[in-house]
Amino acid sequence: MKIHEINAKMEALKSAFDQYREIPLSQRTRFMHDTGERLLKNKDRLIQIAMKETHLPAERLLGELKRTAFQLTSYADACKNGYWMDIRIQKPAEENKPVIKKMNVPLGPVLIFGAGNFPFAYSTAGGDTACALAAGCSVMVKAHPQHAATSDAVAGIIEEAVKENNMPSHLFMHVHANDLSLVEKLVKHPVIKAVGFTGSYKAGKQIFDWGNTREQPIPVFAEMGSTNPVFILPGKMKESAEPYAQTVSDSILTDAGQFCTKPGILVIQKNTDANIFLKTLQDKMSQATPVAMLNVGIYENYEYKKGLSTEQENVKTISTNKHNRQPLMGTPQLTLIDAKDFIANNVLKQEVFGPYCIIVCCRDINEMKQVASSLEGQLTCTLAATVQEAGQQKELIKILQSICGRFIFNGVPTGVQVCPAMQHGGPFPATTSSLFTSVGPDGIKRFTRPLAFQNVAEELLPDALKETNPLQLWRYTDDRFTR
Amino acid sequence: MKIHEINAKMEALKSAFDQYREIPLSQRTRFMHDTGERLLKNKDRLIQIAMKETHLPAERLLGELKRTAFQLTSYADACKNGYWMDIRIQKPAEENKPVIKKMNVPLGPVLIFGAGNFPFAYSTAGGDTACALAAGCSVMVKAHPQHAATSDAVAGIIEEAVKENNMPSHLFMHVHANDLSLVEKLVKHPVIKAVGFTGSYKAGKQIFDWGNTREQPIPVFAEMGSTNPVFILPGKMKESAEPYAQTVSDSILTDAGQFCTKPGILVIQKNTDANIFLKTLQDKMSQATPVAMLNVGIYENYEYKKGLSTEQENVKTISTNKHNRQPLMGTPQLTLIDAKDFIANNVLKQEVFGPYCIIVCCRDINEMKQVASSLEGQLTCTLAATVQEAGQQKELIKILQSICGRFIFNGVPTGVQVCPAMQHGGPFPATTSSLFTSVGPDGIKRFTRPLAFQNVAEELLPDALKETNPLQLWRYTDDRFTR
Repeated sequence: MKIHEINAKMEALKSAFDQYREIPLSQRTRFMHDTGERLLKNKDRLIQIAMKETHLPAERLLGELKRTAFQLTSYADACKNGYWMDIRIQKPAEENKPVIKKMNVPLGPVLIFGAGNFPFAYSTAGGDTACALAAGCSVMVKAHPQHAATSDAVAGIIEEAVKENNMPSHLFMHVHANDLSLVEKLVKHPVIKAVGFTGSYKAGKQIFDWGNTREQPIPVFAEMGSTNPVFILPGKMKESAEPYAQTVSDSILTDAGQFCTKPGILVIQKNTDANIFLKTLQDKMSQATPVAMLNVGIYENYEYKKGLSTEQENVKTISTNKHNRQPLMGTPQLTLIDAKDFIANNVLKQEVFGPYCIIVCCRDINEMKQVASSLEGQLTCTLAATVQEAGQQKELIKILQSICGRFIFNGVPTGVQVCPAMQHGGPFPATTSSLFTSVGPDGIKRFTRPLAFQNVAEELLPDALKETNPLQLWRYTDDRFTR
Repeated sequence: MKIHEINAKMEALKSAFDQYREIPLSQRTRFMHDTGERLLKNKDRLIQIAMKETHLPAERLLGELKRTAFQLTSYADACKNGYWMDIRIQKPAEENKPVIKKMNVPLGPVLIFGAGNFPFAYSTAGGDTACALAAGCSVMVKAHPQHAATSDAVAGIIEEAVKENNMPSHLFMHVHANDLSLVEKLVKHPVIKAVGFTGSYKAGKQIFDWGNTREQPIPVFAEMGSTNPVFILPGKMKESAEPYAQTVSDSILTDAGQFCTKPGILVIQKNTDANIFLKTLQDKMSQATPVAMLNVGIYENYEYKKGLSTEQENVKTISTNKHNRQPLMGTPQLTLIDAKDFIANNVLKQEVFGPYCIIVCCRDINEMKQVASSLEGQLTCTLAATVQEAGQQKELIKILQSICGRFIFNGVPTGVQVCPAMQHGGPFPATTSSLFTSVGPDGIKRFTRPLAFQNVAEELLPDALKETNPLQLWRYTDDRFTR
């Protein structure tokens, strides 16, 4: 793309934004619902294309497509409900004081990067796009090169929905840009007011830096990975070593562990019960049939990172997968290390994207706390424990909660539910802003900013702020939420 | 300060945070109320010190001190109410789905910079400190060098309140740091998790850049200035040229115009009514008795920036203050320029901190829109118009709303009310993050991040998320807010 082509696209995106932001919430909602329905109507075609490009099984892709449609419709419904708008209404406190009303308004055109591991749910029509459209922003999606045809097909469906619902043309734009300098130009273009990204630390951090060093800096919401440590206390081990090992291994193995919430580090205390846990896990990891990874790049990266971790001093391989190694197949692997060696070695704390997991053996609870304290920011931390023993380990819980965005008790981190209470985000380097979520309707707020209206006449107010609350939105006034 | 001294202070700040975040909301509230009361009890002493350092009149300082106490108490009350915590509760949607509960938790120790123009309300015990303490963060304040003694006195009172209310020692720390490299070390210290700043663009941008280039980047909430343009339409001019000129000139002149919301640009259409407006404004600006500015630095900067603006091509000086010019006195000045010259010259769009204002003359509404489109991000934009004519100028309104955080209809931008509906912030370069406010209880959110609790047993949940809602906080569940 030449500069004048970029500029022309950006102008169109800006113009679409200026029109779209004025469109009533109810129409925005209908358009998003319709987009979701169109995706589902085209499911067979979409899944076929995506299977070829990503090697993901049909069943998983169908589930993902349904999730994508659900995101579009549930974020659209949040539009109607309006609770994410943070509306506040201040009547004059005393005579001569103004009436002030505040609501979140869309930031402007948003640039979104398709994610490699979710061809539907976090790509073209994915969570970031759904949030931006719900917020009232126009969207430019930069297709992920490894599922470019899927991205094209989904983009075609969105564009169809835009047209059929009489939305402004160019509300949604789709570009392929595999040249770094072109990507930089897109991120730094003055029309773009925010960026959404899900992918590697390296790419995410680069985009974050570009966003901050623009003439007018913009927020870059990059989700960059996590090791999702699981801490298992002795009581839990005693109670359910074997079934919990089954659950955890499923969480590691599903879809070749290609999830940002895959548990990559298990922290345990050495004892007899732990041996049962380990044995079960070893069996599962050894016997699991390797499945094809998303693409050659992901596969090679997995092999490299797995090798790097395994080769670190005092790391012991404790499972050898019984199936023959084949190119593209993500071979599960389990390793083990003592806590003190783990704490001292930061290589072991990096995400290995794929069905790999390292077990950290601790002497006692104090060593578990030291392990926890040595970790960086995470999307999730999990504590597996009986309620009673957890009640005695407030300090460990405090450490875990201080480094993550979601704290799970007796479960596994995979399976990120799309709902208002979800927090999918976490302290750096898990994301570039722990203050926001990328899953759930609160994710819409990433693409909005508050605007206060002071003494503005009723006729000139947006419907959301009108006296009679014609849109029936949740609003905070006189210390109460009402609707 | 040597590195080991900084480290020791930071360790103490971190330890105070770890204790403070666990303290029940009710105690946090009491402590903040008590701090406010102590400030008021010491008002005579504090005002005397501040008068010497800032040349601000006693009456203004008393008002500011009351505002400071009100911020502390009203943000503390927001603590009890909890609406800023954005609590969301998700019951299992289907069988086997988890219970997820989310709330905002404190980010960690916060570094706050005292503001030069508000020795009380945006300095040591000011809005940022009140927000951080309400959020559950420990606070290090870097004193503003131009009112260091005031800052010391206020810090002493906060420290007394910390002690008397049995808060963790070192919950609040006060440092003097006038060496840039020391300031950089503070901003970049790993213990610090967020920064609050109010001041110049140059300093704010530098701190923002430091925050972004740390090993672990942190949010820097810097408010860096604004020209607060006021657009006056012909109908309003016809209706109330003279009284509105009185109101506007008061807004420019109060306390030597040393407010971030002082109107610095007035945009009008040339006609007979506008002449009345101009005449009134000229009279007020010529006759106003200059008052002492905050300090020599501010005064010299005012003289320089005023001179720079006045010397630009085709800028016409239209008021000459009748009082003799004296050092430190902020001499009011009014200039005038044609819209086309204004649009072409970015120097004229910069903030001149002090009682200076430039009037931009437009031929028609189209030129007014062009002026609006040429402006950068602002804290506020004001439209003075009759309701009827405003109804016909939707496009101008749209432009103004797109560049500001607060849109005022028929008023003046000065007078920032402390209330939930306030938005004090705006697109860059007004602030470094338009997504947050620095005034009102929503400002607390700057120093928090969401944390989700998945399937966590009742006994292990914070009180804010317990089933029975023992703290009576506002919570969003099943598409409703309840308490």
